[in-house]
Amino acid sequence: MSPCQKYRARGRKPWKMMLQILKIAIITFQLVSFGLSNEMMVTFKEENIIAFKHIFLKNYQDRNKDYALYTRHEVHDHILYIIRRYLHLQNLMVDNHAFERIDDVFTPLSICQELYRHANILPANETFDIDPHVETECLSIYPISLYTKDDLENDMNLTLDFQRLLAVNIYLKVKAINLQTVRHKELPDCYDFSINIKFDNHAHSGQIKISLSSDVQIKVCKDWNVSGSTDLHYQLIVLFDCVVICSCLLSLILCTRSVYNGMLLQFEYTTFASIYHSKRVCWSERMEFINGWYILFIISDTLTIAGSVLKICIQSKELTNYDVCSILLGTATMLVWIGVMRYLSFFQKYYILILTLQAALPNVIRFSLCTVMIFLSYCFCGWIVLGPHHENFRSFNMVANCLFSMINGDEIYSTFTKIRDKNDLVWMFSKMYIYTFVPLFTFMILSLFIALITDTYETIKHYQKHGAPLSELQAFIAECKDPPNSGKFMVDEESSTFWCLCAPCVNCT
Amino acid sequence: MSPCQKYRARGRKPWKMMLQILKIAIITFQLVSFGLSNEMMVTFKEENIIAFKHIFLKNYQDRNKDYALYTRHEVHDHILYIIRRYLHLQNLMVDNHAFERIDDVFTPLSICQELYRHANILPANETFDIDPHVETECLSIYPISLYTKDDLENDMNLTLDFQRLLAVNIYLKVKAINLQTVRHKELPDCYDFSINIKFDNHAHSGQIKISLSSDVQIKVCKDWNVSGSTDLHYQLIVLFDCVVICSCLLSLILCTRSVYNGMLLQFEYTTFASIYHSKRVCWSERMEFINGWYILFIISDTLTIAGSVLKICIQSKELTNYDVCSILLGTATMLVWIGVMRYLSFFQKYYILILTLQAALPNVIRFSLCTVMIFLSYCFCGWIVLGPHHENFRSFNMVANCLFSMINGDEIYSTFTKIRDKNDLVWMFSKMYIYTFVPLFTFMILSLFIALITDTYETIKHYQKHGAPLSELQAFIAECKDPPNSGKFMVDEESSTFWCLCAPCVNCT
Amino acid sequence: MSPCQKYRARGRKPWKMMLQILKIAIITFQLVSFGLSNEMMVTFKEENIIAFKHIFLKNYQDRNKDYALYTRHEVHDHILYIIRRYLHLQNLMVDNHAFERIDDVFTPLSICQELYRHANILPANETFDIDPHVETECLSIYPISLYTKDDLENDMNLTLDFQRLLAVNIYLKVKAINLQTVRHKELPDCYDFSINIKFDNHAHSGQIKISLSSDVQIKVCKDWNVSGSTDLHYQLIVLFDCVVICSCLLSLILCTRSVYNGMLLQFEYTTFASIYHSKRVCWSERMEFINGWYILFIISDTLTIAGSVLKICIQSKELTNYDVCSILLGTATMLVWIGVMRYLSFFQKYYILILTLQAALPNVIRFSLCTVMIFLSYCFCGWIVLGPHHENFRSFNMVANCLFSMINGDEIYSTFTKIRDKNDLVWMFSKMYIYTFVPLFTFMILSLFIALITDTYETIKHYQKHGAPLSELQAFIAECKDPPNSGKFMVDEESSTFWCLCAPCVNCT
Amino acid sequence: MSPCQKYRARGRKPWKMMLQILKIAIITFQLVSFGLSNEMMVTFKEENIIAFKHIFLKNYQDRNKDYALYTRHEVHDHILYIIRRYLHLQNLMVDNHAFERIDDVFTPLSICQELYRHANILPANETFDIDPHVETECLSIYPISLYTKDDLENDMNLTLDFQRLLAVNIYLKVKAINLQTVRHKELPDCYDFSINIKFDNHAHSGQIKISLSSDVQIKVCKDWNVSGSTDLHYQLIVLFDCVVICSCLLSLILCTRSVYNGMLLQFEYTTFASIYHSKRVCWSERMEFINGWYILFIISDTLTIAGSVLKICIQSKELTNYDVCSILLGTATMLVWIGVMRYLSFFQKYYILILTLQAALPNVIRFSLCTVMIFLSYCFCGWIVLGPHHENFRSFNMVANCLFSMINGDEIYSTFTKIRDKNDLVWMFSKMYIYTFVPLFTFMILSLFIALITDTYETIKHYQKHGAPLSELQAFIAECKDPPNSGKFMVDEESSTFWCLCAPCVNCT
Repeated sequence: MSPCQKYRARGRKPWKMMLQILKIAIITFQLVSFGLSNEMMVTFKEENIIAFKHIFLKNYQDRNKDYALYTRHEVHDHILYIIRRYLHLQNLMVDNHAFERIDDVFTPLSICQELYRHANILPANETFDIDPHVETECLSIYPISLYTKDDLENDMNLTLDFQRLLAVNIYLKVKAINLQTVRHKELPDCYDFSINIKFDNHAHSGQIKISLSSDVQIKVCKDWNVSGSTDLHYQLIVLFDCVVICSCLLSLILCTRSVYNGMLLQFEYTTFASIYHSKRVCWSERMEFINGWYILFIISDTLTIAGSVLKICIQSKELTNYDVCSILLGTATMLVWIGVMRYLSFFQKYYILILTLQAALPNVIRFSLCTVMIFLSYCFCGWIVLGPHHENFRSFNMVANCLFSMINGDEIYSTFTKIRDKNDLVWMFSKMYIYTFVPLFTFMILSLFIALITDTYETIKHYQKHGAPLSELQAFIAECKDPPNSGKFMVDEESSTFWCLCAPCVNCT
Repeated sequence: MSPCQKYRARGRKPWKMMLQILKIAIITFQLVSFGLSNEMMVTFKEENIIAFKHIFLKNYQDRNKDYALYTRHEVHDHILYIIRRYLHLQNLMVDNHAFERIDDVFTPLSICQELYRHANILPANETFDIDPHVETECLSIYPISLYTKDDLENDMNLTLDFQRLLAVNIYLKVKAINLQTVRHKELPDCYDFSINIKFDNHAHSGQIKISLSSDVQIKVCKDWNVSGSTDLHYQLIVLFDCVVICSCLLSLILCTRSVYNGMLLQFEYTTFASIYHSKRVCWSERMEFINGWYILFIISDTLTIAGSVLKICIQSKELTNYDVCSILLGTATMLVWIGVMRYLSFFQKYYILILTLQAALPNVIRFSLCTVMIFLSYCFCGWIVLGPHHENFRSFNMVANCLFSMINGDEIYSTFTKIRDKNDLVWMFSKMYIYTFVPLFTFMILSLFIALITDTYETIKHYQKHGAPLSELQAFIAECKDPPNSGKFMVDEESSTFWCLCAPCVNCT
Repeated sequence: MSPCQKYRARGRKPWKMMLQILKIAIITFQLVSFGLSNEMMVTFKEENIIAFKHIFLKNYQDRNKDYALYTRHEVHDHILYIIRRYLHLQNLMVDNHAFERIDDVFTPLSICQELYRHANILPANETFDIDPHVETECLSIYPISLYTKDDLENDMNLTLDFQRLLAVNIYLKVKAINLQTVRHKELPDCYDFSINIKFDNHAHSGQIKISLSSDVQIKVCKDWNVSGSTDLHYQLIVLFDCVVICSCLLSLILCTRSVYNGMLLQFEYTTFASIYHSKRVCWSERMEFINGWYILFIISDTLTIAGSVLKICIQSKELTNYDVCSILLGTATMLVWIGVMRYLSFFQKYYILILTLQAALPNVIRFSLCTVMIFLSYCFCGWIVLGPHHENFRSFNMVANCLFSMINGDEIYSTFTKIRDKNDLVWMFSKMYIYTFVPLFTFMILSLFIALITDTYETIKHYQKHGAPLSELQAFIAECKDPPNSGKFMVDEESSTFWCLCAPCVNCT
Repeated sequence: MSPCQKYRARGRKPWKMMLQILKIAIITFQLVSFGLSNEMMVTFKEENIIAFKHIFLKNYQDRNKDYALYTRHEVHDHILYIIRRYLHLQNLMVDNHAFERIDDVFTPLSICQELYRHANILPANETFDIDPHVETECLSIYPISLYTKDDLENDMNLTLDFQRLLAVNIYLKVKAINLQTVRHKELPDCYDFSINIKFDNHAHSGQIKISLSSDVQIKVCKDWNVSGSTDLHYQLIVLFDCVVICSCLLSLILCTRSVYNGMLLQFEYTTFASIYHSKRVCWSERMEFINGWYILFIISDTLTIAGSVLKICIQSKELTNYDVCSILLGTATMLVWIGVMRYLSFFQKYYILILTLQAALPNVIRFSLCTVMIFLSYCFCGWIVLGPHHENFRSFNMVANCLFSMINGDEIYSTFTKIRDKNDLVWMFSKMYIYTFVPLFTFMILSLFIALITDTYETIKHYQKHGAPLSELQAFIAECKDPPNSGKFMVDEESSTFWCLCAPCVNCT
């Protein structure tokens, strides 16, 4: 029975539905508010990293993915550039960045070389003598430094033994305050950036790649003063989170009760069937007592509660794992919105569509499994054969992504053109590979999916017209012929609420 | 009855159809002419803005989206560059650009700083003391200036307090005349460009973004003289617009009359049914009296008339909202062209196709609603979880666009590759997200749409062969068996024109 | 009857089929040989134009689409650069390029300015006085020039009046010889490049666009000497072309005869039907006498012959319109290859597929017409409304291309992102536009096409099993029950060849 | 019978299935391990080539595809740059690269010019006198060289006769050791890079293209010493390969025996049928005795064995053809994974899906053949007509790739926009070409594929419900009514193993 019919039949207001609709509204609102504050934090972090790249890396340009060095001179030059920039950082940056200071001593910039313990390599003779243990040698440079600008190179005393060199790591620490939150009535946080600039020579291939990465720690600032208080705003947000948690708890309890009752009923029916009809009730029939939608709501509520608690912790600066919180809240919101379909399915015409999807699902999943087998077989083969010769097939993950895109009609032409056409055998193989893969999936497998759904839709429609073959349980229920508005359901409000929810006709037995 | 049959049955010429066909021609012609003159205006505006960017922004390059500064020196340098360029503008530009002059005084360039009222920020100690109210300080520079080129910097007296700085805005005004319209026999307009160059430091993240925006005012020039008059051409265009308005008015009146008559008939039928058969006529049956195509024509005509009036105003330089006018005229033309299908549906074989689309539409919309729910749920979840880590999921709008493109097989591979693969949890989530979203929509939902349409097509075809189950109204009409060319319809030309249009057999009752 | 059955029935070898297969082979070979020599010509032309761009345009870079100037100084500079490069061309270029020389006088470089006859424009006062007639002033510079390098600018005496300036055109002529054909045993041709470098200021928008275009004339060189003759090779090619022409002529004659016979038969049948059965034979029945495949072959043969003749002319350097020739030969080859399907359709299992396509075609075309209406309506609307604000909607042609790509799942995301998001009204409109357009075409119209084809396939299959409802002509033919191998068809070889081809049972009447 | 049923029927454990599952695991593991070591080799090779490009080519930038020269001066300059870089190579490179040394003499860098034997070309007069034989002149430069840096140009004595010049090739040899394998417990290899820098002037079009290619030879180093042995690791890998080979051999033998038995049975049945029923058994019925899956396993096993043997050879540095090995192993793994479907098809619900694909396959292939004809016809036509005017249609291979991508909804918009819109005829043709091609394939051909599969699915489903029409063989088998668990199959374990595998009921006759 839909809430609408239930109202007519028993005069009961659809509290549960109203609760769900309210939940959708407040959860979505909560999500949006969290999203906006999350974005501010991410933007600050990211723009800072971009700024550091532009400050410390010589000739750095955005969108230049192949930032690498090729000569010894360049390597020296870049390292000195970083040091010089670091020494003048306070006067360079357009913002309030400062060095970390522990007990009035500035944390130094440290240059660490990773070296093989011993290496004597003579490619000309094709001989080498190597000890593959890695040693690290470090050198510290303090910001308030005595180096004069002119002969920094001499003062530094930096020598790089390129034969043994595996990597040069430069570590430095910078602090900043995210002021923009002030304008959004939130308290500014203090950020600690631990910057690591890496000159990577692990491959010993004549190419030294430079990368800048940055770990960020977010903390409450020690001492602060903002004209115009922001406490009220913060308390309101926490209050709202509590409202969300409460409404979700209520919904969780109601749904759990319904599921519990459904299971009780199922046990009763099983007993009844085994005594009176001496039959075993099969697994699929048992599952019909449990409403899948309730399971969905329970999962969604649990996630929301966990997410909201986490959010309160984040807002009070005790935790900073934004990612886990956003996954929890995001998934919860997704499930809540999908749950709206439940209320749509109370209307006859929507019902058939949702039913079709539901009925086709097992077959679709079954067939998907077959598809995944073929897909995996192509992935393995593509990775191993084309991997070395094709940009898109470099790693297994990229192969899967590329093939998946190709099924859906994307990246096909680029996949053709990215192959390096030197090796004839591989080139031929790649053509055959793509020309068999794409039609197989587009023409055969996609068509079979369409056939599956079309067939299910027609079956469902046929059932709706001519009646479906009844399962035993349904036949049992169908013996009750009372229409919803016959008044019978109004008798025992208290005792049988859940009976009616799950299987309104049980009383008739 | 199709116009063709009507002509045979009653000898009536299909005036209405001819009017509609004429309307298509003239509306399309009007649209094209408006489009061409609109394009000239837009091109001028745009190329000017590009030119200003190249003139005022140092080292500016097209397609460089990340135009930003990172050091204090660069900021000073860029501001001085703008001032210098401004002072020599008249000798630099290849065209007739000039400064605005009010009462013989040139409007100055003004440099405005936005600053926090008070800020004392010490990231090293993790302390800050801030007053988030924003103050603005401005400085004016006149084009006929006393500054010598060499020590402009000293003369200017420009100091930037980067700690408090939120933004530097530079405002200037330039005038130009769009001469190219002369060659197309239209009068040139005068353009006022209010240029705003913004150095944006709101994020305080070490990156100052520069953007140049420009507001344009289009006016009739005060005094002009063009050898060879252009008045006639202008008058012809206005005349043509009036013809369009008249023909649309005529069409509007005819269609409104038809709809009005349909409603009269509907009331009559309702009364008849309630008296003789004592039945209530349901809503969907009532709607059958009103021809949907007429509604389409009425909307289209209304839009065309509004658009044409607006166009006349624009052409006489009284209004400049080109956008509203183009939306009105564009939508009108679209509807008029879709209206052509009405005349195609008079042919038997076309009829079945249009009928299928029409019959499938309610179900398609219904199912689309379910789809939109799932789509929205994915949007929310994607925005909140992937937003901070993925370029395409930055804003809700972009998420929707990206997911919509992915359903249709675009941007899938780039969506995979644009994720930054640092955070393992989010990376895993993003894979699952895409690998569930795309197949769900491509394999299940798209297939169900195909199933819906295929089924409808077969149903319609079956009806055409074996006859559809009649609604009551149709059964009532069907009692009249006179073929169109039986001559009966020729009797009462004057009185029953509209009867025949909507339900030719009513007389038989 | 298929050629195979015919062979069994009458012992006739399938000469015609063998001719067609031979034709496919030689036409494809001819096409490939023409294509290779065509490519050599095109590559030479193109690489030359790229080389000229790099030689003459200062700071030119490939893939830089926005090559434009913004200041007066730059314009002067670029023009002088071109002149300097021109004066030293012979020493600069890495190849055998030379100036055109007529009667021992080098053709000069000429700089032509397009100017308004009179223009007095004062944007500051919003006044202008203009005479829109365009005048051209030219200046010639001879390669053997007296200008010294240092004060070229002074010597040149080039003044540009930017207020009146519409465009500066620089014309020059360079000659070259395409030597690479020597290695492919073809004779080198002489090329005349008429280069036109245009500084375009028509829009007067502060931006002067530079474009380099080049007209090429291809001629036989006047005097040449190549060690090792290439005449034989040339003659062989012409001979092969003649073989192609002959075989096509033969095929043309045979097919024309068959079509002619089919029409004779049709007239006979019409007469027969009108006399004996006193019926009019309708148009569609008449068409069944004419085999569509023959029409296809006739068109293809005609095109091949025309193309081959043109090819001979090109090879003997009398004509140079490669494009027309390639369209003729290309279309012919396409039709010939499609013609292969005819022979496939002689096999039962292939027949049903080809038949389905054939049977569905009228409905598909009919429905395509409806689709085209909607498509056009969207095109007009998109062009007028989004044109000024969106790169992809700039011209009507681009709108059509973009929308067409979007139907097929391409360029959707870029279409979303390319809109400039300033104007809210247009931005909203663009979203609605795309979100209605794509689903309409992907979900509804594409699905209807699938429904059409699926339905046709099932109908055809049903007919094959249970027999199709016969048209009168087929019923008439069906009266003859002789199987192909009954021997009857062997009787009158000479007289009734064509009868058997078209309708083998006519004799039985 | 599925392995599961077999187990119940005869108590036999499914050894074969377990062998197959084990095989999947170990083959996949082997593949992954080979893939990882392969990748290391490829990365080293590639990064070296990139490094060489950056070292030797002046102003080289990644992603710059049009690296070409246009003036004589630049050519000289670039050649000298290469020589200078070569002379100082040892001090430049960040890694252990060295020159090749044979008998204590360094291999020199050699500059080779390809020239026409004689050429006198005067484009101004349109005359030329040429001898197309190509001569090569070389010049050697030794790394320990006497050239002083300053007047290298004078010392070198390098003159280029641009008129006769076809190409300048610079050859040099560099050696390196791939050290990174040390960290992965593999032995480092020695690499010989034979670098060839080519200045290509074959087209004589004013553009000299520069390309750097590199042949790599991988060898065991002559003398080496690594602290900490790696022998054990190597032996384990070879051992694992041997395990793979053994298990594949076992599987190969089992499958071959089954196929052999199937063929024996087939002969027996044929004899039986011809004697008792005096009928010829047709080809398709005979094929039913041979299980297609076994053929698949046999192929896969053969490939794995070949691949593994090759892998052992590679690992012991006797062979270096990684490509062949990866194709063998990759294809084998693909087939093994596809073979998993065999075990899925033992489940009823999976069976129908796999059966549908299998049943639709002949028709799909048949129809694909028709499609390929049309596809080829478009390819030829597109190549010849659009090739010279469109980037994507340059070669036949690219045309096929581009059209194939367009069918699947990729690269459509770029194909539209890449056409150069100068030539109106070709432009018109290109539009028609694309606007007919895409709908033809998307709307008609794809739809027919869907119709084929849908129809097959319905047929199969109908058969499953109402029973399929039996072939004679099936009718013969069907006479045996013993259920699998009746115990009959347990009698003659030894003698009739294979009978039961292929056709369990034969005994009943």
